[in-house]
Amino acid sequence: MTKLAHIRHFLSEKGSNIAILSDPVTVNYLTGFYCDPHERQMFLFVYQDAEPILFVPALEVARAQAQLDFPVFGYVDSENPWQKITSVLPSLDSPVVFAEFNNLNVTKFQGLQTVFSGRFDNLTPLIETMRVIKSQDEIEKMLIAGKWADVAVQIGFDNIKKGNTETDIIAQIEFELKKQGINQMSFDTMVLTGNNAANPHGIPGTNPIEDNALLLFDLGVVYDGYTSDMTRTVAVGQPTQFQKDIYQLCLEAQLTAQDFIKPGVTASQVDAAARQVIEKAGYGEYFNHRLGHGLGMDVHEFPSIMEGNDLVIQEGMCFSVEPGIYIPGKVGVRIEDCGYVTKSGFEVFTQTPKELQYFSLD
Amino acid sequence: MTKLAHIRHFLSEKGSNIAILSDPVTVNYLTGFYCDPHERQMFLFVYQDAEPILFVPALEVARAQAQLDFPVFGYVDSENPWQKITSVLPSLDSPVVFAEFNNLNVTKFQGLQTVFSGRFDNLTPLIETMRVIKSQDEIEKMLIAGKWADVAVQIGFDNIKKGNTETDIIAQIEFELKKQGINQMSFDTMVLTGNNAANPHGIPGTNPIEDNALLLFDLGVVYDGYTSDMTRTVAVGQPTQFQKDIYQLCLEAQLTAQDFIKPGVTASQVDAAARQVIEKAGYGEYFNHRLGHGLGMDVHEFPSIMEGNDLVIQEGMCFSVEPGIYIPGKVGVRIEDCGYVTKSGFEVFTQTPKELQYFSLD
Repeated sequence: MTKLAHIRHFLSEKGSNIAILSDPVTVNYLTGFYCDPHERQMFLFVYQDAEPILFVPALEVARAQAQLDFPVFGYVDSENPWQKITSVLPSLDSPVVFAEFNNLNVTKFQGLQTVFSGRFDNLTPLIETMRVIKSQDEIEKMLIAGKWADVAVQIGFDNIKKGNTETDIIAQIEFELKKQGINQMSFDTMVLTGNNAANPHGIPGTNPIEDNALLLFDLGVVYDGYTSDMTRTVAVGQPTQFQKDIYQLCLEAQLTAQDFIKPGVTASQVDAAARQVIEKAGYGEYFNHRLGHGLGMDVHEFPSIMEGNDLVIQEGMCFSVEPGIYIPGKVGVRIEDCGYVTKSGFEVFTQTPKELQYFSLD
Repeated sequence: MTKLAHIRHFLSEKGSNIAILSDPVTVNYLTGFYCDPHERQMFLFVYQDAEPILFVPALEVARAQAQLDFPVFGYVDSENPWQKITSVLPSLDSPVVFAEFNNLNVTKFQGLQTVFSGRFDNLTPLIETMRVIKSQDEIEKMLIAGKWADVAVQIGFDNIKKGNTETDIIAQIEFELKKQGINQMSFDTMVLTGNNAANPHGIPGTNPIEDNALLLFDLGVVYDGYTSDMTRTVAVGQPTQFQKDIYQLCLEAQLTAQDFIKPGVTASQVDAAARQVIEKAGYGEYFNHRLGHGLGMDVHEFPSIMEGNDLVIQEGMCFSVEPGIYIPGKVGVRIEDCGYVTKSGFEVFTQTPKELQYFSLD
């Protein structure tokens, strides 16, 4: 069943004739066409019993028509989009209208309510259910995105040099990736030295890389619409024994959780697998965030790997495993791989070694 | 009157006791504290007759408290944020509750409706009215952001070299800016050569810079929370006479509109001032977008400089003037400065010359 057919099937089960997609990432996921309309309007109307229709700003019509095999309508800035939608849609009739409540602002929602008289219900849970299980094709793109994250962090390692600042290293990573054709990072690249890594809100700046300290890299790239995300913490010079011990503890937690993952366990149990290791050692209060987040076309999406989430892990889910221990003024460590759930376990997208690596500033 | 006092005054006029701010940029604008809560919840509650309260994810509480002189409450992922809001707010009573409808999704809106029983009304128009007039302090930041855009485009000019691709030049611009402390661009930097610039949806790639063609740069930076945005089109080698003629026409339209701007004219008239120049020459159909957009803390905000917008231009408004002429397969030109409206005219943030500049690939 294609993704659009999946939505049509859902509509028929729910006695609804129409679903309205407004999240640019969802529209891309369903159709392969991406457009961010900013303050303008873009909607994909999916009918239970008729072909879908895309409504976009006029400037986007030609590009959309070239990519899609169903009708595309546009509007110019001087037109009222809601009147235009009313006039171009073949049917406005549906007792229930499904829309993406998590990605539809109140102004647009009120605009759509002037077009459709039916009761509105939330489509977001269905879309999350669809997107949370990745196809083989999606996993292959995420494996490539992961390989580029490995390349990126290696560029970072190669630039651990005396006098280089956090920002210098970020600039070099992104420069060399762009030269190799990777134009977009998943999020602002983080390179944090020493105590800056011990601050969960550390922001990279012009701090020179500290000697005899830990250095944290958190980064990812976008490849063909799919994201990667990884964190490595390495040693520069000789960190203290305490810092090395905390590193080993974090690594043990990370590996324990990775080994625990398989279809049938819950998200909450995966979080607990890592957390118990850190808590038993007496550092639970310094691991003050969830273990992981889903990723795919967004770098943060479902599922959330955290306490209280009873979601059952299934084959094809993709998420991060990223315990961290942050003791202000003393040490900051995080180790993160993202991966996908297989029939029997968990395979990671990133392969950079996790034994503590040592670099010298000289 | 401070910005928060302005909102309190508005609430008293409207017979409302509470306004809820949800746009991270608005919260930053009003308080100086910035946090993007992603899928979590962040709200600034502004009372007519009591001090404001910030509600954020638990991880953000310490940072917010260090920056703000009013109460901050947090919640952890395992808590229900709506119950927590209900328990921490001093009052939930208001016949009307104002919220930012343009920046509040339906799911969050429904959550807030479980907390407040009052009728909801839209605060976005007030916020837009406040943000559209920039203070001297804001304009000074935008002048600095503009200077960095001039620096950026000059780095681009310096890298017009045989064999360099569009992406190579972008990588070099962003690398050198980062080394100088500018970490964030306003949007994805555009460098488009030849026919790629003639496509209004051209995306930079590995096209080598063409000889005897035009080359378009569209970029901006974020400085201290404020954005810049500029476009320059330059000649590489010897473009055709037709391409040079189209450039001159676009420049004439740009300068005509800039000269026309002063308090009292309408946004629609400013758009028309540039458009008429291009239409008279017979190329109106190839100028297929609005003349400009407001900018400030967002690179696209109010006012929109376009046909049909009868907004009266006032001192302190900041926006772009960016006519473009795109004839597929033949020529693509856009020239853009952003500026601020003074008592009697318009001063631009960017100073890079606009007479057609010539570069050689040798």
